[in-house]
Amino acid sequence: MRAVDIIMNKRSGKELSREEIQFLIGGYVAGEIPDYQVSAWAMAVFFQGLSPAETAALTELMLKSGTVMDLSGVPGPLVDKHSTGGVGDKTSLILAPLAASLGIRDPMMSGRALGHTGGTLDKLDSIPGYRTNLQAEEFKRLLLKDGFAMTGQTKDIVPADRLLYALRDVTGTVESIPLITASILSKKVAEGAEALVLDVKYGSGAFMKNPADAEKLARSMVDTGTAMGKKIIALLTDMDEPLGNKVGNFLEMEESLDCLEGRGPADLMEVSLELGARMALLGGKAANAAEGRRLCEEALAGGRPRDLFLANIKSQGGDPEKFLALCGNYRSPCGAEIGAAEDGFISRIDAWKVGRAGVDLGVGRNRTEDPVSPTAGVQFHRKSGAAVKKGDSLMTVWAKDEAGLKAALPRLAEAVEYSKTAPAPRRLILKEIGLPAGGPEKTA
Amino acid sequence: MRAVDIIMNKRSGKELSREEIQFLIGGYVAGEIPDYQVSAWAMAVFFQGLSPAETAALTELMLKSGTVMDLSGVPGPLVDKHSTGGVGDKTSLILAPLAASLGIRDPMMSGRALGHTGGTLDKLDSIPGYRTNLQAEEFKRLLLKDGFAMTGQTKDIVPADRLLYALRDVTGTVESIPLITASILSKKVAEGAEALVLDVKYGSGAFMKNPADAEKLARSMVDTGTAMGKKIIALLTDMDEPLGNKVGNFLEMEESLDCLEGRGPADLMEVSLELGARMALLGGKAANAAEGRRLCEEALAGGRPRDLFLANIKSQGGDPEKFLALCGNYRSPCGAEIGAAEDGFISRIDAWKVGRAGVDLGVGRNRTEDPVSPTAGVQFHRKSGAAVKKGDSLMTVWAKDEAGLKAALPRLAEAVEYSKTAPAPRRLILKEIGLPAGGPEKTA
Repeated sequence: MRAVDIIMNKRSGKELSREEIQFLIGGYVAGEIPDYQVSAWAMAVFFQGLSPAETAALTELMLKSGTVMDLSGVPGPLVDKHSTGGVGDKTSLILAPLAASLGIRDPMMSGRALGHTGGTLDKLDSIPGYRTNLQAEEFKRLLLKDGFAMTGQTKDIVPADRLLYALRDVTGTVESIPLITASILSKKVAEGAEALVLDVKYGSGAFMKNPADAEKLARSMVDTGTAMGKKIIALLTDMDEPLGNKVGNFLEMEESLDCLEGRGPADLMEVSLELGARMALLGGKAANAAEGRRLCEEALAGGRPRDLFLANIKSQGGDPEKFLALCGNYRSPCGAEIGAAEDGFISRIDAWKVGRAGVDLGVGRNRTEDPVSPTAGVQFHRKSGAAVKKGDSLMTVWAKDEAGLKAALPRLAEAVEYSKTAPAPRRLILKEIGLPAGGPEKTA
Repeated sequence: MRAVDIIMNKRSGKELSREEIQFLIGGYVAGEIPDYQVSAWAMAVFFQGLSPAETAALTELMLKSGTVMDLSGVPGPLVDKHSTGGVGDKTSLILAPLAASLGIRDPMMSGRALGHTGGTLDKLDSIPGYRTNLQAEEFKRLLLKDGFAMTGQTKDIVPADRLLYALRDVTGTVESIPLITASILSKKVAEGAEALVLDVKYGSGAFMKNPADAEKLARSMVDTGTAMGKKIIALLTDMDEPLGNKVGNFLEMEESLDCLEGRGPADLMEVSLELGARMALLGGKAANAAEGRRLCEEALAGGRPRDLFLANIKSQGGDPEKFLALCGNYRSPCGAEIGAAEDGFISRIDAWKVGRAGVDLGVGRNRTEDPVSPTAGVQFHRKSGAAVKKGDSLMTVWAKDEAGLKAALPRLAEAVEYSKTAPAPRRLILKEIGLPAGGPEKTA
C-alpha cells in the first residue's frame, strides 16, 4: 500500500477502505507518513468528501489513537452536550448542573477560546482559584459527587486529532464536514459519554455560516455517532447574534448564574431549555422533548441546579461566596458605553463582529498561546427587536487595556444594524436532527 | 500575507494575485513555506485549476527560480521541440539534426526514462562514449558548430520545478494541467528557445489518456507560452500504440538513423515530418506547414540531417563509425521471439503495456535512481493493421536478464489485440493548436 495511491483514490472520488484509512492516518500518527501527504489527502477530502463508512472508520481510528476515558465505575446515564461554538454561548455552564439535578451525569471536557469564538475553559478559569486541569481520578470522583465536572482534554485523549487539527488549521482543510465530524465525535466518544446532544450553530458567529451547511454537519455527526452505537440528537440553533446579553469570561459565568436563578435573558433560556430537554430525553428521564423541557423548568424553579453550580465551583478550587460577591462587580477598569447611532429598531447585532471585537477586548485570542482577560467583555442592554432613540445606551464595554478598547469600539458600533420598522423575531431553533429510537425527524 | 489564506483562496476558486503566487512558491523555494502547505495548495489547484494569468505568473516565477540559459551569442532562429512523452517516441533525435540542416538551431535539454515512458538521455547514453552532461559553455559551442546539442538539464535550471515536482509526485498532484504547463514551459523557456513545437500525446502510452485532456493541456501550454512572448504550436498525436518499430535505448538511436536515411517506419516518419514542418514554420524557413514539410523531405533526401546526426555523436564523445557498426548488432544476448496468438488482423498494440514491459526488460525504470540497459528492447515486425496467421513472428524481444524477460513476455503478448476484419487506419495527428501569427486553428 502506498500513501500516494490512497491520496489519488480519494482525489478521484473513490471510497477508501478501512485499511487504507488506517494506513494513512495510523501511519501519520506513528510518524511514518509525512504531513505533506496527509495535507494533500485532507484537501482531496475537502473536495470529494467521505462516505458515512469512511467517516465512521476515521472516527474510530482517531478514537483508538489515544486513551478512552474509563467511566465504568460511574453510574449513568452519562449524557454530554457539545456546541460547535459561538459568541456568548454559555449553555454548557447552565446545562451541566441542570442535567445533574435530573440525575444525569455530564462528563464535560471543554476547549478554549480561539478566533472569534469563546471557550468554556477560559470562562471557568475567570473564577479565582478554579482549576480546569483535573486528572482522570479527580474528574471521576467529582462526576460521582456533584453529577458533573468540568475539565480540559487531557493530552492522551485522541492525540490523532491534535496532530490532524494542527495540520488542517494551516493547510485550509478545517472546513470539511467529515473531518469536523471525526474530530468532534472521536473526542466526545473518548470522553466516555453514552449519549450526546449537539448544538450545531449557524450564522455569522458560527463555524457554519448558513443553515444548509449546519444541517449537513449535524446529519453527518448524527449518522456517524449512531453508527458508533451512541444516542445522539442535534439541534440547529441561531448564532447570527450573540447568545444572551453578556459576552466575556467572568461575564458569562455571571450570566449562567442568572439563568440558573431564573432571571436569564430569554434567548439564552430558550436554547438552554431545548438542549436540556434533549439531555433529559437521551438520559431516559423523559418520554419526549416536551416532558424533558418541563422537567428542566421545574428543576430550575426548585433551585437545585444553582446549588450544584456553586458546589462545583467549590469542588474545583473556587470559593462560591467570593464568586457571588464578584458578580456584577468583577470588571476591568478600562470601560466605555456605546449608544444607539440612530432612531428606529435594532435589526441585528452581528455575532461575528462582536466576536472579533472580543479578541481586541481580551475575551478571546488569535493564537492558542495568547492570554485572555477574565474581566473584559460586553454587556448588551438592548438586542435585536428593541426600539431605540439615538444615544440610548446599547452596551457597556470592558477591555484589557486602552488599545484594545480603542480597537473594539468601532467594531462593536458597526456590529449593530438598524431598521425603521420592527424586525421579524429571531428564530432561535431551526431544526432537530436524529431521534434516539430512529423516529421521524421534526422541523421545529 | 499568510500561506493558509492563499490556500483557502484557491480552494474556493478565487484567482490568486502574482504576489500571492510569489509568496507561496517563492517562499517554498526559499525554504520559508513548508511542503505540507504547498501540497495542500497543489491539491486545491488540481480541483480548482489556475487561470491563464495565474499559470503565466507561476511559470515566470519558476523560471526565475534558477538560471536562464544565455544563448545571446548564438544566432537564431532557436526552435525547440518538446514531447509529453511516450513509448518508442524518438522524434527529438530525428528533429534536432533535421532542423539544423534547415538552419534552425535546437538547444535540446532532455530527460530520462521514468515509469513506462522512455527518455532521450537514456537513448543517447546507449552510444558508447556519448556524453549527455554538457556544461553551458560546451553546449553553446556545439550548438554553434553543429546546429544542435543534446544535454540533460543542469541543476540550476528551474530548481523550483525539481522541488515542486518531487512533492507533486508523492502527493497525487501531478495530473494538473496548469501545474504541468508551468513545469514544462518554465524549463523550456529557461533553456533559451525562442519558439517551441509541442508534441502533446494522447492514448494509453501517453500521460493524457484521451484527446480531450491532451487538447486542454496543449491549449494551456500554447496560451501560457504565447503570453510569455514565445512562438508556440502544439500537435496532438497518437500514443495508443508505440511510435515506430523499435522500442529500447540503442534500438531507438538505430531507428532514428533509419529515418534520417529515408527508410524509417511510416508512422514515425509522418509524425517527425509534421513536427519538423512546424519547426521550419516557427523558425521562419517556411511560409506554412506544407512548405515546411516539403523542406524537411528535401533535406532528408539530401542526406545532410544524417551527417549532422553522426557529427553530433562525434562532438559529444561517441565514435560514428563504431556506432554504425553496432547498428543491427548491439543487442542483449537474452532474447526471445513472440508469435501471433491467432489468425486475423492486429487491431492494436497497447503502448502502455509495451512501456510497462519495457521496465521489466531494462529499457525504462520505476525509480529515478535505477539503471537502464542500452541493449534491451523490442523490435516489432508487424503493427496494427497487419494481417497475421497464428505463429507469425510479431516481435523480437531483448532483456537485461532472464527474470526481466520472463516478466515481460506475457505482458508483451497481452499488449497485442486482434480482430477478424481489418481495423480502421490509425489517425496519427489529430489536431494543431496555436498558430504563431494568431491565425485560425486547423483540424487536421
